[in-house]
Amino acid sequence: MTQGVAILGSTGSIGRSAIRVLDRHRDRFHVVALTAFDSRDLLREQAEATGAAYVCLVSDGQGASGPGEEVPPGCLVEAAIRPDVDIVLNAVVGAAGLQATLAALRAGKRVALANKESLVMAGDAVLAAARSGGGEIVPVDSEHSAVLQCLTEPGVAHVRRLILTASGGPFREWSRERLREATVADALEHPTWEMGRKISVDSATLANKALEVIEAHYLFGLGYDCIDVVVHPQSIVHAFVEFRDRSVLAQVGFPTMELPILYALTHPERLTDDEMPLFDPVQAGPLSFEPVRTDDFPAFRLGRAAGEAGGTAPAVYNAVNEVVVGAFLAGRISFSAIGDIIESILEAHHVEPAVDVETVLAADRWARERGEALCSSR
Amino acid sequence: MTQGVAILGSTGSIGRSAIRVLDRHRDRFHVVALTAFDSRDLLREQAEATGAAYVCLVSDGQGASGPGEEVPPGCLVEAAIRPDVDIVLNAVVGAAGLQATLAALRAGKRVALANKESLVMAGDAVLAAARSGGGEIVPVDSEHSAVLQCLTEPGVAHVRRLILTASGGPFREWSRERLREATVADALEHPTWEMGRKISVDSATLANKALEVIEAHYLFGLGYDCIDVVVHPQSIVHAFVEFRDRSVLAQVGFPTMELPILYALTHPERLTDDEMPLFDPVQAGPLSFEPVRTDDFPAFRLGRAAGEAGGTAPAVYNAVNEVVVGAFLAGRISFSAIGDIIESILEAHHVEPAVDVETVLAADRWARERGEALCSSR
Repeated sequence: MTQGVAILGSTGSIGRSAIRVLDRHRDRFHVVALTAFDSRDLLREQAEATGAAYVCLVSDGQGASGPGEEVPPGCLVEAAIRPDVDIVLNAVVGAAGLQATLAALRAGKRVALANKESLVMAGDAVLAAARSGGGEIVPVDSEHSAVLQCLTEPGVAHVRRLILTASGGPFREWSRERLREATVADALEHPTWEMGRKISVDSATLANKALEVIEAHYLFGLGYDCIDVVVHPQSIVHAFVEFRDRSVLAQVGFPTMELPILYALTHPERLTDDEMPLFDPVQAGPLSFEPVRTDDFPAFRLGRAAGEAGGTAPAVYNAVNEVVVGAFLAGRISFSAIGDIIESILEAHHVEPAVDVETVLAADRWARERGEALCSSR
Repeated sequence: MTQGVAILGSTGSIGRSAIRVLDRHRDRFHVVALTAFDSRDLLREQAEATGAAYVCLVSDGQGASGPGEEVPPGCLVEAAIRPDVDIVLNAVVGAAGLQATLAALRAGKRVALANKESLVMAGDAVLAAARSGGGEIVPVDSEHSAVLQCLTEPGVAHVRRLILTASGGPFREWSRERLREATVADALEHPTWEMGRKISVDSATLANKALEVIEAHYLFGLGYDCIDVVVHPQSIVHAFVEFRDRSVLAQVGFPTMELPILYALTHPERLTDDEMPLFDPVQAGPLSFEPVRTDDFPAFRLGRAAGEAGGTAPAVYNAVNEVVVGAFLAGRISFSAIGDIIESILEAHHVEPAVDVETVLAADRWARERGEALCSSR
């Protein structure tokens, strides 16, 4: 009896890795559902290769089970709550992934969560959905997977501090002055991880790391004073966990998303997988660590502060970040405008308690509109 | 109700660290028994500070409970099997620690084992004693403690490989030619750990790491093909554990024996301890890894081979190593003679199955006599 998996965002970087991983473990898993945004040809190929029963292209709302019967967000949700799905890998990019996360958790599924925005926008609502529906969240982000792997007992009573690592991105050594001139091509040249465009820019601004701090706060139930970040250019150590006796464990390895994807499917168990890269500390080379340059990477500092402010602030941060990254990728604003616009919108925002998803989505819409207006006025 | 602890070898480096650790955790532990070899004054001080009920100087066989009633090895064993002792910290140096380990395990105690020779000489007998008496062995060596801390489930079914780290010792960068001229003072200058004289020389020859490989084999029940060693000059990563999915965990921290001592007392639990050094990856500096120079450090290669040969070979290796290190420290033989003498005695030894402790002790005596003879003939 194998477990059924739905892959939301199957044609993206995480989705394609997941299909490779699942193909190696057909004795344990089978693909039930695939959704993609608009990569029609690749989605069709994946559907044939996996034999998925449900296939849906979000951009036209058509499910293979019956064209035209779905509207876009419903397509993700329908895939997520199918009775033959045990595990939902949510690899949707951005706020679009939230409803599917909530629905899957309410339906008692395991959510292998690559869509960190679900937790960043609506962490409390997502945790409540898991409690009420009996679902569970297992992280796919390599840093959070590393933390989970280091937790030697359930819960975090024995944990004193997390240290998430950041590669530092392509601009780690750039001066503040040079950063102002950074181009889209510069921002997409990530030194250690091959990723999608949105997350590559988030890595260049370190916004991604701020989102991960917020994600860790909700995933592990730790206060922000217990979550540190250190720059580690080699991306070999994915996270450190410091325990109450000050002992520290780390999860290490050559960068690959296949491992955290597999672990999210099997946690707390591990499966033999001889296709994973074999770690060699000598080949990994010298491992170095540096403080985060918070003054020069405002998107990091602002994101962390939004997390600490709580309520609707992280949703606003996430929304305006999506808008400004889109505008930067479209050549509409400069690299340095990213931090400026995020800052001005967070300053203008009156933080409210995130009492429900509607409140969060309203804050999200407000931030997007305001962000768009600021991008257009530049 | 606090747990009673016997410290065998209380005046050595490990013993002194243990007394500091125990003093910080008087709500959980109390010192019941102390033994030392010949540091009479320090032992008396420790006895007063801890209020230990049983105190014994091995070199004169006198217990505070009644002078003259003990002969040397009995003093260690008596301390180890007292009914008011729950945990025996065996920090005796060398083969002298074996009988106490066996007795404590047969009496159902937890043995916090710093005396790796117990497992190296008579691993099968030690494991049998633990099974028959209900005792358990918890390692104090930093590398083995690191491995234990990384095991996220009991047993090693999920483990693919261990990688123990070695600082490389003071001669890591010395050429083969220069090694021949190494003096006692050179050998005692350990770069990262402050330790006793015998183990410092073992670190310089890398014999210590071979002993640790053998210890790991017995402690964790893994074959030698699953135990690798890598040189890591900074001594920050204490060991790596690679799991069946090729994910790797590591335990890291600034070098201190206090942490593995505390963990051996509390495993699998952890106690809050704000005196332990706080880890800082930035301060830890670049971490580098190199292959072991097996050709230039014959004591490592020979020790590993003795482990793989099994039977009485590890006991012979350990015994001759103790003899040659003593002779080197006494200025009787050169540094390069250490490997030569070990090699010639292992070649002359007919390996027998280690069917019982007597067989092991006979091999030990044979190797010591022969080693002494070879040292004297130089």
